[in-house]
This record gives sequence, structure tokens and C-alpha cells, in this order.
Amino acid sequence: MSQKRNIIVGQSGGPTAVINSSVAGVYTAAKELGFNKIYGMLHGIQGLLDEQYVDLSTQLKSDLDVELLKRTPSAFLGSCRFKLPEINANPEMYEKIFKILEKLEIDVLCYIGGNDSMDTIKQLSDYAALKGHPQKFMGVPKTIDNDLAITDHTPGFGSAAKYIATATKEVIRDALGLSYNKENITVMEIMGRNAGWLTGAVALAKTEECCGPDLIYLPELPFDMDKFVEKVQALVKKQKNVVVAVSEGIKLADGRYVCELSGGADYVDAFGHKQLQGTAAYLAGFLGAKIGCKTRGIEFSTLQRCASHISSRTDIDEAFMVGSAAVKAAVEGNTGKMITIERVSNDPYRSQTGIYDIHDIANNERIVPREWINEEGDYVTEEFINYAKPLIQGELQPFMVNGLPQHLVVKKD
Amino acid sequence: MSQKRNIIVGQSGGPTAVINSSVAGVYTAAKELGFNKIYGMLHGIQGLLDEQYVDLSTQLKSDLDVELLKRTPSAFLGSCRFKLPEINANPEMYEKIFKILEKLEIDVLCYIGGNDSMDTIKQLSDYAALKGHPQKFMGVPKTIDNDLAITDHTPGFGSAAKYIATATKEVIRDALGLSYNKENITVMEIMGRNAGWLTGAVALAKTEECCGPDLIYLPELPFDMDKFVEKVQALVKKQKNVVVAVSEGIKLADGRYVCELSGGADYVDAFGHKQLQGTAAYLAGFLGAKIGCKTRGIEFSTLQRCASHISSRTDIDEAFMVGSAAVKAAVEGNTGKMITIERVSNDPYRSQTGIYDIHDIANNERIVPREWINEEGDYVTEEFINYAKPLIQGELQPFMVNGLPQHLVVKKD
Repeated sequence: MSQKRNIIVGQSGGPTAVINSSVAGVYTAAKELGFNKIYGMLHGIQGLLDEQYVDLSTQLKSDLDVELLKRTPSAFLGSCRFKLPEINANPEMYEKIFKILEKLEIDVLCYIGGNDSMDTIKQLSDYAALKGHPQKFMGVPKTIDNDLAITDHTPGFGSAAKYIATATKEVIRDALGLSYNKENITVMEIMGRNAGWLTGAVALAKTEECCGPDLIYLPELPFDMDKFVEKVQALVKKQKNVVVAVSEGIKLADGRYVCELSGGADYVDAFGHKQLQGTAAYLAGFLGAKIGCKTRGIEFSTLQRCASHISSRTDIDEAFMVGSAAVKAAVEGNTGKMITIERVSNDPYRSQTGIYDIHDIANNERIVPREWINEEGDYVTEEFINYAKPLIQGELQPFMVNGLPQHLVVKKD
Repeated sequence: MSQKRNIIVGQSGGPTAVINSSVAGVYTAAKELGFNKIYGMLHGIQGLLDEQYVDLSTQLKSDLDVELLKRTPSAFLGSCRFKLPEINANPEMYEKIFKILEKLEIDVLCYIGGNDSMDTIKQLSDYAALKGHPQKFMGVPKTIDNDLAITDHTPGFGSAAKYIATATKEVIRDALGLSYNKENITVMEIMGRNAGWLTGAVALAKTEECCGPDLIYLPELPFDMDKFVEKVQALVKKQKNVVVAVSEGIKLADGRYVCELSGGADYVDAFGHKQLQGTAAYLAGFLGAKIGCKTRGIEFSTLQRCASHISSRTDIDEAFMVGSAAVKAAVEGNTGKMITIERVSNDPYRSQTGIYDIHDIANNERIVPREWINEEGDYVTEEFINYAKPLIQGELQPFMVNGLPQHLVVKKD
């Protein structure tokens, strides 16, 4: 690309605490590399189809704004859960998108998202190749679930893990403070449909002054109700206070989600995924009835993915880094690729970006390897902890205004 | 008291993010005032009955420890939910307590707690008066629920309110980021059985860059299901994205808790209170079925009372202040009293301690005044916001170790 024109960035899928840091990275790099206009699509590709976008220079008027953007949770530009149809199924939609790109004189499109969103980059770059369109399409990884293939980890995971480990420490203190000579079971429910990365992160709560959770159940292995009750029962007998973490996605051997046992969960999202909720409440009720002691279920819920008030500095910096790397890679002529994070060393922790063909990444889910889960299937191993620990390090203090973290929001003219 | 001997402090009831700052206040004042030994009862009066206590000088070995204690959530010494029987019903229990106090050469007993715990101070001071025992008994207010009589507010409320308002801002960003041309309803469930102070605190999330929640339902007023659905339906039509906050304790006009409608909630605690849970999940499901759009229920859960990682500096300082004031008041000869917080001015915010007869406080619940709720009964007024806002101001950064907030825990020899 000899003459740089315009660039557009979009956000897609479930938000994270640091997805906006990637927008800041795209914006900063694009400015440095001399792009003319830097657009943000509102609500991803779905909004773009409706010609919903902003000129980011009208939104980020100062370095302070860029810093505030890094500290703003959820998708600043708005997200979407919108899967592009196969090219043959709806060529008109693709034509429409490329017409809009041409109208805006876009050279580069960066799309920040997870598995489903990387599919969008794959489709768009395939279509461009097919039709000889010159635009470059780059994927920027994002997902708290950490389930993207090839990359060592995904931005968003570290901050969610930090929040989860922090909250777990606090919940354990709460449980221990209250339980005196009384049996007490806490079941915490953590996000993660098929991949247990976030659920495993509760193990980080085990520190010199905190015993950590007693049992951890990932969705990678079938969940055995009888064995679970037996284990908890034995622990309650021994130590009275028991804290268990389960993934929302744990399933019985017959394939049913545990949360389905309570009769809930019939909402299906745009990608055909069942909404999972109520696993902790169900298990807490079940254990209470079986063991006959006080139980409580705590669903960490949406807060896991939007708690930017305690995000990881490492995560924010890497989110920025992958955004900025995507722009540079496109300028160097890459398209149909995703930026990855490569771990250079673990202690001291250092990482760098890589670049990978989107076809090997899209729609490919990376789960926790079996050898990072203990033999019994109820805790993660030291390897898992060594992997996750560096990713929660460091803080970027929120900008506190009147006692609350301030966020940046899109100003519409 | 001419010759100061020993003092003992205990914690009781549901923990808060700052209840330990009151222990720090008691400890610091007792040291300054020349007490010989400063004991901490483990798990409140229940633990004391089993002679469970520690010498606090073995726990707080440096100023750094005291600072760490201020940043530690839940009851450092352990709490209990234990109601002393009427004196006539079990004089042996009282004799036992006073024997232990005499053995430990206790002059002053400070008890940090809420409504039910202030009853303990009342009973012990009544018994001492009856039997001519010289010990002084002082109550130190604590409860996230903010429902103690006489005092302007209670330590613990400000931090819980700050966490709730912070999380509400983040949840609203999350909801807005995701909803594009799609109806979306979020129902947040906040703690508070009979008093809506914490639920009202969600209104603090309304700031220059955040619209705040749309509707707020406190337990002070009967909850009208039909009117609620009608209101939400109209809002969804108008703005698509709707965020509602409800207290866990909202009840229908016939007295049934909303959370009971789902068939849950049959656990009753030591004080005879029903455990409330599942209100948000129930309402979200109900609205989803009625309106036919995506809904989600978010229970803020235990994290409200233990999120010391984002506690209010004002709250921590006041928790320390009331602890320290209790010791001073006892040394001045007071007994059977509770320290209160008096608001001296609102802007700039200033407060001071007062002192009040425990008989006027124990077992008396203070709810949100009707005139601080709007006429429609679905939001709080400006007066409520002006009252709550100063209490969430300021931060005391957690001590971060390896990426997580560090806590102080009791070292047992």
C-alpha cells in the first residue's frame, strides 16, 4: 500500500474489560502510520451494514481520552452477535459491505473478537480474494474464554481471571469468617461453555494467606454427580467449610448440562448456543438437600467480563499491542490473518505478537489440555497455574470521578 | 476506671468490607489509652463462650499489619450469628460469659455488629447492671444494610454502595455494548431484606456518562407485578435496552416475597430470617416469557459485602473512627451504648461520632423514608442520592501481591 487512505475497526461478540484497549491500539498505530481517517463501526459488521460508524478522531480528542478508553469495559463502539452467511448463500450482503468500504475509502478493516468473529474476517478476506478486492482484513483476538486456537492466550482472559481470583479470595474470606462449628458449602459458578480456562483461574486464589477453593470442575470432563456429592460430603466432614468452583458449562456423561437439570435454560443465541445459567444455584440446592447443611450458590455472572475496575495491566497492555500489531501487519500487506500472542518467557514474563492464517483459527475452540487437569478431574495442575499467573499481574487504576470509575462513551453528533 | 486492665473486641453478624477497620480502630485506641492486653474474641460471643480468643498484639505486629487489616474483607476475627437468650431464660450462659471476662481481667468489651448484635450489648450491659459487674459494654455499628436506628449511616454501607454503583455502571455498559436494535432487559438483584438502602445505591451509577438504571424497586413498598411488567414493556418499546434493580426483599401486597414465587427460599437462619435468593432470576424469566425478548438476571450476591478491593475510603475511615470512639467512650465510663455517626455537613462532607443508649437501637430497623422514594415507587429521589453520595467517596488501594489483593488472616499458634 503506497498511499494510505482510511481504516475501520469494529468489535464483535461478548465484551471484555479490555476490548477497548485494542481499539486504542488500532487507533494509535493507525495515527502513527499516517492513515487519513480512522473509523469505528458501531455494533460491528451488523451496524456497518446499516452504515453505522463514527470518525474516531471525533471521539478520541486527547491522550486522556485514549487512556480513558483503555479503562472502559464492554465494547465502546458497540458489539454484535452476527454471523455472516456463507458467501454463496447471500452474495448481496457481501456486495453491500464492500460498497460501503469503497465509499468510505477503506484500505484496512480490523475486527476485534473471538471465535465467531474471526469467522467474519475469514469470510470477508475470502470474498475479497475471490473478487479481487484490494482491502486487507485483520483479526484482533479477544475473549474472556481464552478459547482461540494458536494464540498463547487471548486479551480479556487475564482481566477476567484477575477479577475471578480476587472475588474468590473475598468469597472464601467471607465464608470462613461466618462459619464457626457449622457446615457451610459455597458453590461458585464461572463462565465458560466448553473451555474451562476461567474456571481454572479460581485456583489463582490459593495464595500464602488463602487456602483457595477445594474443588474445581471444568467443562472439559464429564461431571459425575454422585462422585461430586461424595467428595463434598467427605470434605464437609473434615473441614466444615467447603468452597467449590464449577464452570457454567459442566455436563453429565449423557451430555445434559447440569443447569438443565433444574428445568431452565432454553434460550438459544444467534450462534445457536444455549444460554447457561443456574448451575451454582442448582448444585447448592442439591447439596443442601443431600447433606443437610447451609449452602449458597454464587454466580459470578456478567461482572466477570466487565469488571474493568480491577483489570490486569498485563492484559490491557497486550490488548493494546495486538490492536496496534494488526494495523502494522495490514500495512505490510497481510490479510485474512489474526494477530496472536506468543509467550517469549514466563519468568520474567514477556510476550510478543505473531501472525497466523485466519483459516486455522476461525471456529476452532481451544480447551484446557487434559494434562493440566488433575487425575481426579477436580482441580487444575501446577502447569495451569504457571500459565495463568503472569496474565493477571499489574494494575491500571481506573480514573475515579466522584467515587466511581469513569468510562468513555460514544458521543453522537 | 483508674487502672486500665484488658479489653476485648468481637465481630458479629454478616461481614462487610470494612468491619476489620473497626477492629483496627479499637486496637489503635486501646493501645494509645494504655490498655494492657487487647483481646479479640474468635467468632464473636459464641466463640468467647468456648474461650476462643487471641491476643491481638500477636496478630498485629506492625503498622503495616494494621493497614492490611483495614483492607481485609469479612470478619478477621470470625463472626457468628448467635442471639443471646433472655437473661431469665438462661442465667448460666451469662454467668459463664462473665466468668470468662473476669478470668481475662476484661474492663471493656466492644462488639462490632448490626441490629442483632447490638442486642448482645444490650443484654450484657443489662446483666452487668443487674448483678453489679463493673465491665463496660460498647456497641460499634456495622452493617451493609444501613438499617441501624439513630446513626446517620452505618460503616459497611458506603463500601457496599460503592461496589454496587461501580458494578451497575459496568453492567449497563455491558448491556448497551451488546444491544443493537434488539430488546434486552437486565434485572439486577441487590441485598436488603426490609431496608432498600443498598438497592437505592444503584442510582449513584447515574453519572455524566452513564444513564443509570431505569427502574429501582425497594422493599419498603409493596411490589406490583402487573404495574412492573407494564412499565418495563413501555420502556423496552421506547429504548430497547432496559436495566432494572430490585431488592432481594421485595414483596407482593399479600406479603409473599417475589423470590418465593419460584418455589425456592425455605432456609431459615438462626435469627428466624428467611434466606432470600433468586428474585432477579425469577423476574428475568417472567419478563422474558411475557415480553418475549432476551433477559438476564444478575444477583450481586455475596460480593456486595466482601468486595474490599473497591471499598470507600470514607467508609474505611469512619469504621476506624467508630471503633476508636467506642474505646474512648468506655474509658470515660460509658456502657450499654452504641457509637453513632453524625453528619456534620454534606458539602464538604464531614462527620463525627455520637453516643447513644443501646436500648433505643437494638432490634430497631431503620428503613428508607417514604419521601426518599419517588411517588411512583420505582426510583429514589435526589435527597436519597445526596445522602448516599458522600459515603462512597475516596479509595484505599488494596495491597496487591502477585496480582491479587492481600488480606490479613489470624495466625494460630
